[in-house]
Amino acid sequence: MKAIVTVKLKDVVLDPQGQAVLGSLSKLGYDFVKDVRVGKVIEIEFDKVRKYDDKIKELTEKLLVNPIIEEYTINYVSEK
Amino acid sequence: MKAIVTVKLKDVVLDPQGQAVLGSLSKLGYDFVKDVRVGKVIEIEFDKVRKYDDKIKELTEKLLVNPIIEEYTINYVSEK
Repeated sequence: MKAIVTVKLKDVVLDPQGQAVLGSLSKLGYDFVKDVRVGKVIEIEFDKVRKYDDKIKELTEKLLVNPIIEEYTINYVSEK
Repeated sequence: MKAIVTVKLKDVVLDPQGQAVLGSLSKLGYDFVKDVRVGKVIEIEFDKVRKYDDKIKELTEKLLVNPIIEEYTINYVSEK
């Protein structure tokens, strides 16, 4: 089974990486672009154990996300 | 309008960041996790100009993706 964890900076937090991309895009002439925000997508492949969703949530909050400045979503994909 | 560009390493490419996370997870006792791969998710907010999809594809391939080792998907979200 697979968990797709998407981690993004909270909207109120300045995104320097996004601002850098935005600056490059305007230098390249892509003026129609108004804002850019960069986040992480973490794919976790795992064996389907009991209460796996609680465990995935726990390891996400423990290791993958800084809850002060970041927010996350978890989507599950069962593989063929 | 918003474009969500998800950039991931090609499956054949070793993912050192993913391996580092995997190592930490097993040290923390999350043995049911078999593999971890880390990618980027880039949210681009833009004004809906003519042929915006061609332009978003072009800037993605020019600036956001290394086509040799990375692959990407683009999803469009029109905002309320």
